[in-house]
Amino acid sequence: MTRWKLIVEYDGSGFSGWQRQAHAFSAQQALEDAVFAFSGERVTLHVAGRTDTGVHARANVAHMDLEKKTDGETVRDAVNYHLRPHHVSVLAAEEVSEEFHARFDARWRSYRYRILCRRAPPALEAGRVWHVRKALDVEAMREAAAILIGHHDFSTFRASACQANSPMRTLDQLDIWLDEEREEVVLATRARSFLYHQVRNMVGTLALVGGGQWTLDDFREAFAACDRRAGGPTAPAQGLAFWEVGYDSSA
Amino acid sequence: MTRWKLIVEYDGSGFSGWQRQAHAFSAQQALEDAVFAFSGERVTLHVAGRTDTGVHARANVAHMDLEKKTDGETVRDAVNYHLRPHHVSVLAAEEVSEEFHARFDARWRSYRYRILCRRAPPALEAGRVWHVRKALDVEAMREAAAILIGHHDFSTFRASACQANSPMRTLDQLDIWLDEEREEVVLATRARSFLYHQVRNMVGTLALVGGGQWTLDDFREAFAACDRRAGGPTAPAQGLAFWEVGYDSSA
Repeated sequence: MTRWKLIVEYDGSGFSGWQRQAHAFSAQQALEDAVFAFSGERVTLHVAGRTDTGVHARANVAHMDLEKKTDGETVRDAVNYHLRPHHVSVLAAEEVSEEFHARFDARWRSYRYRILCRRAPPALEAGRVWHVRKALDVEAMREAAAILIGHHDFSTFRASACQANSPMRTLDQLDIWLDEEREEVVLATRARSFLYHQVRNMVGTLALVGGGQWTLDDFREAFAACDRRAGGPTAPAQGLAFWEVGYDSSA
Repeated sequence: MTRWKLIVEYDGSGFSGWQRQAHAFSAQQALEDAVFAFSGERVTLHVAGRTDTGVHARANVAHMDLEKKTDGETVRDAVNYHLRPHHVSVLAAEEVSEEFHARFDARWRSYRYRILCRRAPPALEAGRVWHVRKALDVEAMREAAAILIGHHDFSTFRASACQANSPMRTLDQLDIWLDEEREEVVLATRARSFLYHQVRNMVGTLALVGGGQWTLDDFREAFAACDRRAGGPTAPAQGLAFWEVGYDSSA
C-alpha cells in the first residue's frame, strides 16, 4: 500500500463543494471516480480544505492509499485523463509516508478572496469574484483587519453549522490590497485552521467597513460581541479560493 | 440622434465570435438585443475588433446610434441589466461625435495570448489558456518575435480566408514573458490592425521555436517565404483576448 499526496486545483462552479454527497456532484467524487477508473481501487480522499459549493481551489491537498504499484507522474496524468471534462486537475502526485494526513498534519491554510469594485458586472471573471458596485476604502478595511490578527474568539464570524469544538482561532495573516488594473480588492488570509464560513463572514463584515456603512468602532464592537448575529453578511462563495496549505518539511 | 461609444468585455466561450450570424449566438447579437430591450431601437454595432469564436475581449470598443435621449451611466447600466445572464458586459458608455467610428478610427489594437505550460490541464483557467504540456524557451521566442517587429509582409501568418487588401502590416509590439506563479507564457502584441488569424498564427509558430522544434533560422525562413504553408499551426482561440484599442485623443 502506498500513500499518495495530491495537489488539486478545481473550479468550484461545477461542484457542490469538495465533500462527497448522495445527490450532488462534488470535487471529491470526481477525483475518486477518476482514481477508480485508473486503478480499479475505491479510495477515500482526505483533504486539507473542505470547500463549500462554488468555492474554488488553487492548490488544495488530499491524500489517498493505493495498492497499485505506480509512480507520481503516472498517477497525476492518468487521474487527469479520467477527470475530463470536469474542471478539476491534479497538479502533482507524490508518494508520502503512511503517517501523512492531508487534513490533520496541515500547519496552516491560506485563502484568497476577490471583490470586483465597479458598476459593470463581471463577464470574464463571472463566478470568480464578488461584484460590489462601488469602490471600497482599502485603508479602512486594513485597519479593521488588523484587529483580527492573533489569537481570538471568532464567534462573530462563525457559521451556526460550525462543528469545531472551540471558537478560538489564531489568525496569522489578513492582507488586503487594491489591484487597480483589475478593479479588484483582494484579501489574503492564513491560519492553522478556520471556523466554518469564517473567511466569508470576515470578508462580508470588512466590506461594510470598506463601504462606509460601518465605522472601525462598529467593527471592533461586533468582533468583541463574540456573537454571529453581531457580524456582517456572509460574502458569496464564488469570490473565495482555497489558496495553499503548509506542512512540516518532513511531510 | 446620439452616437455612443461602448467599451465591452466578454467571455468568448459563450459566443460564436463577435459578429452577428443567422444560426449562432454572437456577442454582437447579445448586445444589440439588450440595447433593443432598453431603448426599443434596432441598432447595428460597429466594433474595433471582430473576434472569432472562443476569443475573449477585455476592452473591445463598439459604437451605435440612438434616438433616445439618455446619459452614459444609464446606457451602461440598462444594457447590462438586459444582458444577463450572458457573459458580456458594458464597462463604459460615452457620448461621442457623429464622425466617430469604432473600427475605422482605431489607431492601434492590442491582444494578449496566454499559454499554460505544465503537465496538468487547466481547471480554474480552462477556456482561457492554451495548454501546452511543457516549458517553453521564452528567450528563444523573444528572439524570433523581434524579427516580426516593423513593417513586413505577414502572409506566412495570414489565414486563407483573410479579406484584407494587402498582407503588409506594421507590428509595433510583441512582448513575451513568463508568469512563474501561473506557469504561463504571456504574449502581448500591438499594431494598427492585424490580418485574419495573424495573432494566433504568430503564436502557434513562435511556440514551435519555444518548444525547440524550430530554430531561429527556421522561423526566419518561414517568415521570409511569405506563404501560409510555411508557417506553424494556428494557436487555439481560447488563449486569445482582445485587450485594448487606441484612438486619437479627440475621438
